[in-house]
Amino acid sequence: MSSNTLHNYPAEQKALTESIRRKKSFLCVGLDVDLDKIPPHLLREEDPIFAFNKAIVDATHAYAVAYKPNTAFYEAYGAAGWQSLEKTVRYIQSIDPTLFTIADAKRGDIGTTADRYAQAFFHALDFDSVTVAPYMGRDSIEPFLAHPGKTTILLGLTSNPGSADFETISVGKHPMYQEVMQKALTYQHSERLMFVVGATQTQYLASIRQVLPHHFFLVPGVGAQGGSLSEVCRYGLNPAVGLLVNASRAIIYASKGGDFAEAAQVAAQSLQAEMAEALDVYFKS
Amino acid sequence: MSSNTLHNYPAEQKALTESIRRKKSFLCVGLDVDLDKIPPHLLREEDPIFAFNKAIVDATHAYAVAYKPNTAFYEAYGAAGWQSLEKTVRYIQSIDPTLFTIADAKRGDIGTTADRYAQAFFHALDFDSVTVAPYMGRDSIEPFLAHPGKTTILLGLTSNPGSADFETISVGKHPMYQEVMQKALTYQHSERLMFVVGATQTQYLASIRQVLPHHFFLVPGVGAQGGSLSEVCRYGLNPAVGLLVNASRAIIYASKGGDFAEAAQVAAQSLQAEMAEALDVYFKS
Repeated sequence: MSSNTLHNYPAEQKALTESIRRKKSFLCVGLDVDLDKIPPHLLREEDPIFAFNKAIVDATHAYAVAYKPNTAFYEAYGAAGWQSLEKTVRYIQSIDPTLFTIADAKRGDIGTTADRYAQAFFHALDFDSVTVAPYMGRDSIEPFLAHPGKTTILLGLTSNPGSADFETISVGKHPMYQEVMQKALTYQHSERLMFVVGATQTQYLASIRQVLPHHFFLVPGVGAQGGSLSEVCRYGLNPAVGLLVNASRAIIYASKGGDFAEAAQVAAQSLQAEMAEALDVYFKS
Repeated sequence: MSSNTLHNYPAEQKALTESIRRKKSFLCVGLDVDLDKIPPHLLREEDPIFAFNKAIVDATHAYAVAYKPNTAFYEAYGAAGWQSLEKTVRYIQSIDPTLFTIADAKRGDIGTTADRYAQAFFHALDFDSVTVAPYMGRDSIEPFLAHPGKTTILLGLTSNPGSADFETISVGKHPMYQEVMQKALTYQHSERLMFVVGATQTQYLASIRQVLPHHFFLVPGVGAQGGSLSEVCRYGLNPAVGLLVNASRAIIYASKGGDFAEAAQVAAQSLQAEMAEALDVYFKS
């Protein structure tokens, strides 16, 4: 791709695209850790969640460009869980500072409160990005967009059945999620946005790519939820790659035994191989 | 009010109504604590946020029936902030177990992830209730509603200017927020719901009360944001009271000096007096 193609992207998104092309992977590993599901021998560690994440990151970082802990899984363990989250994001950065970190927090609040969330995730925890919910509108999103060097990932069309309740209902001539996307493009520093677009919604993906030709999509729902990687690539790739595809359970719980890290590596490598092929096809054609 | 009026309410909401009628107050105090705004002498305490909250709760609990820490203000301080939140909710319960605690978290995520958030707020932290965002639909809300004895407070129509972006736009014959409210009533255990309705939106409050005659509204936006308490009472009260009116800055930052707790008490007492009058008028007429 020519450097010209990317000249309007913020530096941090250019760096992500470079990392993707270098690793031939746009894999994001979801670190949704549940103490009831990790190998029992890890429960003897001082911080079992961190120990699990460290092993997963060590095993998979050659095949992944991003990691996405979902905050719910950490908050469920209170302050101790929050500490595991802090250690996890710091460890990822120490392993390879080009790894893109996503706090999957789906926060949404207004004004000074949104500022505090931005402070929590962009600075106290030093994540590269955070997921944000759109319901409360502009003044719940712009406080995140105000942070240079950071990325705000807005819920667009999610992968769950409940997305039919509000996201896909008609508002005027188009569905709600499209209203969200189009309005978000008018927000200040909208170039710092990415959008969540579920892999189970590929019938809408081509039209979403038309509305948002340049932006990155964070795509959950491949694997356990039934989304197809090849369909996502077919409709979602753009000249800056424009995709981060997340897999959580399919990687971190590939095995629940003592070989969990090796199994995670195999699962990540297999997804990376599929992605390398899709990138080859797209950028050669 | 006859006991018959309340026969369909969950026990925890009946208890809240009793507490309101006993204290002649439906005041909720928002504990949105910012270390840059509290009296400097508290910064010498081991846990300044908790020290501040303890003083505010001690000074105001005779005039309030609920406390609502917004999680953003705690997360901004990382694991230490989360610890202050744990101590705060525990302290409120120890002072008076009839005080209703609200985690203003505005969470929204799906299935097992929503379960983890419910675990975090209803059990790890033992809050009575949590605020939840509607965008992702049924399977992001029902996992909260599944918890007996707990209350899920869904964002309806919020008090901020950005509410015009999505909440008030037309979907078919009514605005989005009404679609959210009506659909939420079809969710399993919808009797465990309350709704956020901003005090700056009183022009809509009468029609919202028609859509939701029985449910409690959590009303932010009185005071600093310009909402009128008397307007809220006029259109919002119902036979079970049906209102929790939140004030944050107007109480906790009533003074920023050494007399902050006394000033908070005066501010809370003044709001309580207005509420007592509104209740007298409503239940006598």
